[in-house]
Amino acid sequence: MTQNQGSPARELTGRELATAIRTDAAERAAALAARGRPVRLAVVTATDDEASAWYVRSIVNAAGKVGIECEVADLGPGAEVGEIRDRLEALSADEWVSGIILQTPLPRGAKLEDLASSIVPAKDVDGANPLSLGRLASGLPAFAPATAEAVVRLLDHHGIPLSGRHAVVVGRSTVVGKPAAHLLLDRDATVTVCHSRTADLPAVTSAADVLVAAVGRIGLITPDHVRPGAVVVDVGTNQTEDGTLAGDVDPTVATRASALTPVPGGVGPVTTALLLAHTVQAAESLA
Amino acid sequence: MTQNQGSPARELTGRELATAIRTDAAERAAALAARGRPVRLAVVTATDDEASAWYVRSIVNAAGKVGIECEVADLGPGAEVGEIRDRLEALSADEWVSGIILQTPLPRGAKLEDLASSIVPAKDVDGANPLSLGRLASGLPAFAPATAEAVVRLLDHHGIPLSGRHAVVVGRSTVVGKPAAHLLLDRDATVTVCHSRTADLPAVTSAADVLVAAVGRIGLITPDHVRPGAVVVDVGTNQTEDGTLAGDVDPTVATRASALTPVPGGVGPVTTALLLAHTVQAAESLA
Repeated sequence: MTQNQGSPARELTGRELATAIRTDAAERAAALAARGRPVRLAVVTATDDEASAWYVRSIVNAAGKVGIECEVADLGPGAEVGEIRDRLEALSADEWVSGIILQTPLPRGAKLEDLASSIVPAKDVDGANPLSLGRLASGLPAFAPATAEAVVRLLDHHGIPLSGRHAVVVGRSTVVGKPAAHLLLDRDATVTVCHSRTADLPAVTSAADVLVAAVGRIGLITPDHVRPGAVVVDVGTNQTEDGTLAGDVDPTVATRASALTPVPGGVGPVTTALLLAHTVQAAESLA
Repeated sequence: MTQNQGSPARELTGRELATAIRTDAAERAAALAARGRPVRLAVVTATDDEASAWYVRSIVNAAGKVGIECEVADLGPGAEVGEIRDRLEALSADEWVSGIILQTPLPRGAKLEDLASSIVPAKDVDGANPLSLGRLASGLPAFAPATAEAVVRLLDHHGIPLSGRHAVVVGRSTVVGKPAAHLLLDRDATVTVCHSRTADLPAVTSAADVLVAAVGRIGLITPDHVRPGAVVVDVGTNQTEDGTLAGDVDPTVATRASALTPVPGGVGPVTTALLLAHTVQAAESLA
């Protein structure tokens, strides 16, 4: 990795890759539809959270554009755990449903990792079932959480090497940090996971050749967290007060990193495209 | 962590802890037997490997001492994958079997992670089913692989703090390195996983407050891999030419570390004790 000599970081945009993934998914979805097997994605939601509603609409919209039918099962914020579980089991058993997403946040007392056990792995297109994570960690075929996979796909797309490199993931969530760590490890990176209890975060993150920020705090990563010339992937999609999106990485990091994913337009569009690609892949396996 | 001023490292023995775990397991096994629910452990083996046979005998012996009946299903080195799977499924369904271990090595073409999917998680006392690993990584109740759990239990027993400390795990196996990383992360350590493809291993391991060696290569970890005063856990149990056991950590590391687990007598006895404790716990849940 060459040192950044004051020139701003290369922007690792996700739009081109997302378009390529969507184009491929659309072709394959059309082929399935022509054989009488339309691709269908079920989104189960049990919240009145506005950001969630916005995200679900964006999924429905994106799915429609690649020829995937989207069915939103809105159980409302008062849904019981048993009701959500029953719905996931019914969708798992429904031969016309290709993929299933359980949207967060969930009602109080419901835990994503627990409920997602009711999504059959073959349709678990966002890798939420603990079995999917366990299979991923064990080197067995499984759908990875789309966001975690988007990190590695974006790095690949831009020709960033991973083998033997030190990747540092900030954030240890089950949906992003942990699966991203496994995917990076699987690519022969040396992988460090840090989090809110890490002592001296800047010292740890400064060891990174590739730094992945997946915390959900605006601007947490500043230039003193970044080794000059490092590649930085910003997974954060935080709502600002004025309604725009901001990442976990402060924009001034661009003066220090050699390459940086933008927010929006970096990991986000690749994530959505991969969710759709997984759904098509699930439909192909089920067809 | 205080710097080691030339005095040899404190020996973090596992024998005392193993005895305590076995004593507790024996009492609970006796209570179950008194209620007509004897604890039974099934060991499935399909190899003529001598080290494996030795290990199985040691398990049978240790189980007997705490009042656990051990049933060894020796399918031989020529066993078919389907035959092993069928046996695991039958044992999973047998209400008189409390715990199941699938012994390695397996016949050519058989993969532990894949076959272990046939061990029902409630009886998966060595955490070999990918679902167990996924649940562990997701923060849900599950049996951890006994060796990985032994690492953390041994550190706890000797009062080594983990929260906020940097733990470096050398080795990324599904049975030790990866689950150990998850258990250390769960204890709020910052966790790095390195492996054969790691560039400059001594530089990475020297960042460790707690270094866990789980590679299976005699003496891989030398003093220049260790920060003065670090705590070193040696998971290696390698057979030497003269038939004794040797760890992954060179004995000279004792001049540099503040504390070091011996081989034999460190992680090993705790691992065996935990396997038995898990089996009793499984029996209690099934009773």
